[in-house]
Amino acid sequence: MAEVKKPSKERIYLQGSSDAIKVPFTKITLSNGETILVSTVEGEKVSPLPKIRAKFTKSTHNSVKRTQLDCAKAGIVTEEMEYAAIRESYATGDKMAYTPEDVMAEVAKGEAVIPANVNHLELEPMVIGKKFSVKVNANIGASQVSSGFAEEIEKLKLSLKHGADTVMDLTTGINDIMGLRQAIINNSPVPIGTVPVYEALDRAKGDVGALTWELFRDTVIDQAKQGVDYFTIHAGLVQELLPHAAKRILGIVSRGGSIMATAMIRRDEENLAYTHFDELLEICRTYDVALSLGDGLRPGAIADACDEAQYGELKMIGKLAKRCYEAGVQCFIEGPGHVPLNKIKENQELEDLYCNKAPFYTLGPLVTDIAPGYDHITSAIGGAQIAKEGTAMLCYVTPAEHLALPTPEDVKVGLITYKLAAHAADIAKGLKGATLRDDAMSRARADFRWYDQFALSLDEEHAFEVWRAQMPEDCAHEPSFCSMCGPRFCPIRTNRVLKARYVK
Amino acid sequence: MAEVKKPSKERIYLQGSSDAIKVPFTKITLSNGETILVSTVEGEKVSPLPKIRAKFTKSTHNSVKRTQLDCAKAGIVTEEMEYAAIRESYATGDKMAYTPEDVMAEVAKGEAVIPANVNHLELEPMVIGKKFSVKVNANIGASQVSSGFAEEIEKLKLSLKHGADTVMDLTTGINDIMGLRQAIINNSPVPIGTVPVYEALDRAKGDVGALTWELFRDTVIDQAKQGVDYFTIHAGLVQELLPHAAKRILGIVSRGGSIMATAMIRRDEENLAYTHFDELLEICRTYDVALSLGDGLRPGAIADACDEAQYGELKMIGKLAKRCYEAGVQCFIEGPGHVPLNKIKENQELEDLYCNKAPFYTLGPLVTDIAPGYDHITSAIGGAQIAKEGTAMLCYVTPAEHLALPTPEDVKVGLITYKLAAHAADIAKGLKGATLRDDAMSRARADFRWYDQFALSLDEEHAFEVWRAQMPEDCAHEPSFCSMCGPRFCPIRTNRVLKARYVK
Repeated sequence: MAEVKKPSKERIYLQGSSDAIKVPFTKITLSNGETILVSTVEGEKVSPLPKIRAKFTKSTHNSVKRTQLDCAKAGIVTEEMEYAAIRESYATGDKMAYTPEDVMAEVAKGEAVIPANVNHLELEPMVIGKKFSVKVNANIGASQVSSGFAEEIEKLKLSLKHGADTVMDLTTGINDIMGLRQAIINNSPVPIGTVPVYEALDRAKGDVGALTWELFRDTVIDQAKQGVDYFTIHAGLVQELLPHAAKRILGIVSRGGSIMATAMIRRDEENLAYTHFDELLEICRTYDVALSLGDGLRPGAIADACDEAQYGELKMIGKLAKRCYEAGVQCFIEGPGHVPLNKIKENQELEDLYCNKAPFYTLGPLVTDIAPGYDHITSAIGGAQIAKEGTAMLCYVTPAEHLALPTPEDVKVGLITYKLAAHAADIAKGLKGATLRDDAMSRARADFRWYDQFALSLDEEHAFEVWRAQMPEDCAHEPSFCSMCGPRFCPIRTNRVLKARYVK
Repeated sequence: MAEVKKPSKERIYLQGSSDAIKVPFTKITLSNGETILVSTVEGEKVSPLPKIRAKFTKSTHNSVKRTQLDCAKAGIVTEEMEYAAIRESYATGDKMAYTPEDVMAEVAKGEAVIPANVNHLELEPMVIGKKFSVKVNANIGASQVSSGFAEEIEKLKLSLKHGADTVMDLTTGINDIMGLRQAIINNSPVPIGTVPVYEALDRAKGDVGALTWELFRDTVIDQAKQGVDYFTIHAGLVQELLPHAAKRILGIVSRGGSIMATAMIRRDEENLAYTHFDELLEICRTYDVALSLGDGLRPGAIADACDEAQYGELKMIGKLAKRCYEAGVQCFIEGPGHVPLNKIKENQELEDLYCNKAPFYTLGPLVTDIAPGYDHITSAIGGAQIAKEGTAMLCYVTPAEHLALPTPEDVKVGLITYKLAAHAADIAKGLKGATLRDDAMSRARADFRWYDQFALSLDEEHAFEVWRAQMPEDCAHEPSFCSMCGPRFCPIRTNRVLKARYVK
């Protein structure tokens, strides 16, 4: 056996139409010289992050009250659009897979969103929309019971390492919630989302009765100024839907939705985010915060899926989505939840129908309730399927779901699971170049290039460790067999005979 | 907080029309008195197993050369059919969900199979077919490189514990292969499948050139006499398909298929299982061994999926399936492999079209190639989807796939993953009572009955451990919150307010 040739990985930058636009990729050079580009972001090891958007000149942050959506409608290609187009394209092996104009056109229709708060200068812009690769969100966040400040920054870095496309900070109940969030934003090259009502409730000292519009508004403004890129706002959960939710086995399982509902019941008032929606739009316009219209009534049980509460809220959200679009505020639509496999397609179809084809952003969905400890898998089954049907972004679910807060290991496993689900959907959608990495993997398998296989894996370290634990050989070499069939008879070797005989 | 009421589990037996038919179930009694039945088998702790089929009087093992299929065609309800019907029905909460006659009718059409070698007296009969619950197969087996005799029996017991519906023994390259197999059969209440060509090649001392029909036939006869319930035979991989396989990136990845192809090339002869298919049918008839018509050309890469090699073989297998049916030999059809999500439905449709609707039995399929270490998940995504479309049994894939032989922990994780995928498909197919356990879980969630949730989980021990690791409370109590939201604000508690207000 020859000494093994090792693949290598390096960070490269592809420049756009100006010096300000330099988009990072990981370039994997395999042992046979083949190369694969993988979209990536700075930030895993870099601190402080460069404020790359400070150099953007056409960009919205130079022009308060002109959002990415306003620009797109006016036919203006922003640096953010060009940056996002380069990111989507180069990894496909086709530089022109998506032009900046393609991105602009999707944003202009409201069918794609570039979450990019004018104050988040460290952001490396990306686009969310069904025409583009499926994105994955990771949730982090400290709470009263578990986790602290340093651990959250670690979770952010871990999320970036494993490919999170956006990160939501769901922190509640700690003292310096603003400080933690600012640290997360400044350390994040990906869009940061929040659920402002969590902090608003903290400001009300946990008393839902004290959760006024003024308090909510001030929280939203403070977070917008900090640079939060998108807000989950549960404005579609209106009073008339509550009796439908009450009929369910599991009622309301969305924490934000539940807070809103409690406030509505306590004061016998309409949802304050609904009644003050125009004011919220004004704040979002000012900082170009995208709205993630929250599904406070997402089903938390197979038994509750696709009921009047869920679809009634989706219809209402669709009306709000149109108001967002008219106001020049980018928006996307949150989706379930727990949904049986035979209803997945219907969920995407109704979202398209009611919500003007704004990007759909789902939590899974989980396709059964009986596998706690494995809900990253029950939800990836539904997630891959709904993404194939057009959902633009998946919110990850970790193995801790329904049981505990995720540990760092859970964050990793959840993300890898969702990256593979999103990738499976990219392949199924027929996106240009979606199978480049798969095909390189298959060639590496055919050639027994084991280290190339690891380099191409979504979780390189783990794949290597599993293989190495059973290989009887010195790992400096690449044996031309593996522990599955052993050295005596190997199908892969037979294929060389086949090729020699039949392929001229 | 009150002292916690704990749920309990017990083994119960439901009797059929005679004393000989006593079907075991696990009865879960929740803390509120609700009960759930889960289909189970003896054998995890029992040794030696009772030879329950020795008391069957109408059964085929009393009448050599009358298979389950022969009986079904003649309108005879065997004890095996009745036993299988009880197993399918009671867990659904509806005793009459499937009558013995329903099972007979599906077997008579060739759309369901009861793998039950007349010599496997410890077998607790079960039925595989799209009208019934989706089944899961686990592979075990020693090899030259890894694992030994005792470990394989442990893997069998572990597979039974986690719900394997059938088990394939893929042992190769050890000294006492017959002895190990006999021990596996005698310790197994579930059908045991094998790939006889593995042992035949061992008998030929690994020399494919010495793999004659006589040697293959004698191996098949010996295994049939031992009580193997189904054989994977790669008889559809005929010479004319080899040039198509040679064009692929990964050629042939099926080990059995590769052995057959090598023999065909070495001797320049047609596939011996194809040319001697009638003699194989005669052996299978004699012992009522079901044929699992192997897809030696299953794609091993997304790039190779759905090509002429794969579909050409499927067509050929379809012709063999018709010969099985006419000969009174039960058969089912093996399927892929690696298939993109958008081609999953097509695979099931073509199987129905070519193969007379004989049950489909797939390995996954895996929906991407780039996630070694996570291929239980990439394949469960495809598996759940194809089972929703009608596939009757899924062969599990473990996290070790493409890297190593599975450890006992891999076997467990692979099985739980496939049980949840199969269950998701049962729900999607709308099988009677498929959501009973899910709904009980959701009610337990609504009531903070944590221990009931664990009792209803596919992996009870694991779910409990994840939860317990973060709960600050004494585990003798059931706190009415969890670490995810903490004690201060809990959506589940809000639902009680909702119900009080809106549900009369």
